[in-house]
Amino acid sequence: METLENGLRVVVENQPWNPGLSFTLLVPVGAVNDPPDRLGAASMLETWLWKGAGVRDAKAFANALDSLGVSRASGTGIEYTTFSASLLPEGLPATMELYSDLISRPHLPDDAFESVRSLALQELAAIEDQPARKLMKKLRREAFTSAHGQPVEGEKETILSMTPAALRAEYARRYGPGGSVLAVAGGVKPDNVYRLAEEYFGSWSGAVSGEVPVRLSSPHRFHLQQETEQVQIGLFYKDVPPGDYDFYAARLAASILSGGMSSRLFTEVREKRGLVYSVSASPGSVKGFGYLLAHAGTTPSNAQETLDVVRRVIEGLREGVTRAELDRAKIGLRADLVLAGESSRARSASLARDVFILGKPRSLEEIEAEVMDVTLDRIDLFLSRHAYENPWVGTLGPVEVV
Amino acid sequence: METLENGLRVVVENQPWNPGLSFTLLVPVGAVNDPPDRLGAASMLETWLWKGAGVRDAKAFANALDSLGVSRASGTGIEYTTFSASLLPEGLPATMELYSDLISRPHLPDDAFESVRSLALQELAAIEDQPARKLMKKLRREAFTSAHGQPVEGEKETILSMTPAALRAEYARRYGPGGSVLAVAGGVKPDNVYRLAEEYFGSWSGAVSGEVPVRLSSPHRFHLQQETEQVQIGLFYKDVPPGDYDFYAARLAASILSGGMSSRLFTEVREKRGLVYSVSASPGSVKGFGYLLAHAGTTPSNAQETLDVVRRVIEGLREGVTRAELDRAKIGLRADLVLAGESSRARSASLARDVFILGKPRSLEEIEAEVMDVTLDRIDLFLSRHAYENPWVGTLGPVEVV
Repeated sequence: METLENGLRVVVENQPWNPGLSFTLLVPVGAVNDPPDRLGAASMLETWLWKGAGVRDAKAFANALDSLGVSRASGTGIEYTTFSASLLPEGLPATMELYSDLISRPHLPDDAFESVRSLALQELAAIEDQPARKLMKKLRREAFTSAHGQPVEGEKETILSMTPAALRAEYARRYGPGGSVLAVAGGVKPDNVYRLAEEYFGSWSGAVSGEVPVRLSSPHRFHLQQETEQVQIGLFYKDVPPGDYDFYAARLAASILSGGMSSRLFTEVREKRGLVYSVSASPGSVKGFGYLLAHAGTTPSNAQETLDVVRRVIEGLREGVTRAELDRAKIGLRADLVLAGESSRARSASLARDVFILGKPRSLEEIEAEVMDVTLDRIDLFLSRHAYENPWVGTLGPVEVV
Repeated sequence: METLENGLRVVVENQPWNPGLSFTLLVPVGAVNDPPDRLGAASMLETWLWKGAGVRDAKAFANALDSLGVSRASGTGIEYTTFSASLLPEGLPATMELYSDLISRPHLPDDAFESVRSLALQELAAIEDQPARKLMKKLRREAFTSAHGQPVEGEKETILSMTPAALRAEYARRYGPGGSVLAVAGGVKPDNVYRLAEEYFGSWSGAVSGEVPVRLSSPHRFHLQQETEQVQIGLFYKDVPPGDYDFYAARLAASILSGGMSSRLFTEVREKRGLVYSVSASPGSVKGFGYLLAHAGTTPSNAQETLDVVRRVIEGLREGVTRAELDRAKIGLRADLVLAGESSRARSASLARDVFILGKPRSLEEIEAEVMDVTLDRIDLFLSRHAYENPWVGTLGPVEVV
């Protein structure tokens, strides 16, 4: 990893066998820094940035990217926005120049603003029609009292009251190289990348907004009444964050819960009882805080039993795990790591996130070594001390589950 | 490619750089062969097969796969069911043995049948809560009068009336090596794979059901009334099938419509007018028949304009394309092909599908050569002769779009 003078961190993973490459540019602009009266600003900015930058208007910019064969994506989350590109190595300099324009010289033109607003409203309406997504969004909002619970997509009122001037002010206040990360993976030499990063991003300047400490509400339940066919059930448990001594023990516990066909949730909730088509528990995190999110969708008549069994299985972790379970979880995570190495896009995204969350990248080998280091005694000690209990519980559907 | 004596076709793509590998076992068992009173049988069988096979009950089978670190998946579609595995090379013999048990020596136990039925009903309910998926399922049903329109998930009545004996009869009638494909991609030598395939699948026997010719209704419109926030719009156009002389011209046309940021639909529907957050047109096919499916979700007030613009853009292809558009589409497809080569799972799935649809695999190099061969004259001639017009049009939402 290298840090440019302006604070941009650049990390490269060389995959010499790979004929393609991907990069992810992570900017610390997310829902967590949206002012309460400008919810959705980070997400709207992400859309607006593509409307022309540097010497190109929106159409010319799109043509230039497509002429390079770049498969591009961008997305806004709780803590950051990412801009990614997958491409052939010969296109890297030109593509980096375009992305440099995108984030440091955007036009943010008035005449595209109403279209950006309209897209934000469309996205908000789309969530209303996706019950699982709607519930998990509400669950986050209920659990966090800090701005980590703010909706990435904003709210109807804040989107309607947004102005071009207000959104430009958000750009000026939050888009800068400090806290940002450029991560590259694929068939490319690190020295070449560092040189290109310096050339195209070295003169980028701009402020960044400060970090927000996590605060939580007291665990509680809520219900969203909606005339759906299925009842959606969501649970939010406190967990350990990346960087914690017990992080990999917790990852293995999550895998024992929900990793494979023999995992506890799959076996107890789906295979033995046929309560749900899919059930999952997956670890998530924001800077300095980790959580475990569980989700199931089922019929109204099965909802109570499903909730009870999911809780019993997750909270039963405190009794410890068997050696066979731990061994299977380790083997599964090891295979996942090897297969994750296949994709340059996934690797560049993981590296960018590592640098953002932990301040340094983790190689696949490092992660594997940490996973293998977790003994049965260590995971059982962790599980006896860190009880998964007392979750925030949300349901959505035609009947309330108590 | 090699064909075993029992008819199973085996294809291997060696990726010598790849530390992992994936295989896809494709069996010609899909909704298209479900008898009308047993709709959903293929999908229910896929679930039931995992409930124990060979010398192992369901739990032992799951443990065995997880002990090998296998990331497994299975899915049922219109024409076939696939069973796939991603794993480390040293686990290949044991995993192939397990999958051989799965498809040729399943227990199909009575005591798991009600759980299989319950899961099928859950999946049906889940679709009701996913408006876009619900509409596209109905659109297929409206367009095909042949069994290609049958719902993969079945219907409530046929799932409720299914019996273990009926489902076992479907297994006996349809699971066999003829028409099936085993495709392997990754760090593995072809000769090893052929030897293992012979060892584990060579003695597999069983019938397969015959092919079903495609028949279509007359293009028409329909509307599903539902109190959603967004209106979902779906269009189904006749296109050319894989293997057709014009197949790659049609693929490039679809890419010009919907491939990149500069594509016509993205530009006209989203960027210029802000009508939808996402809009797409993607080619699909069943054996011997190709189609182009377009989808957009928008607010009720924008629905009519969205439908009009999407149709105008797609049907405007008859006027031809520009050289710049064709060049960008070629570059984009070429980059996609290189990046597709990264993933062993995606490659094994594509190879299996190629053999099923075309009778032979296509290498990424072959596809690239075919794409590059399409000149401006050739695509314009194709577009002037094969008009994209007269689609089946479906809408779902609170207002009917005329």
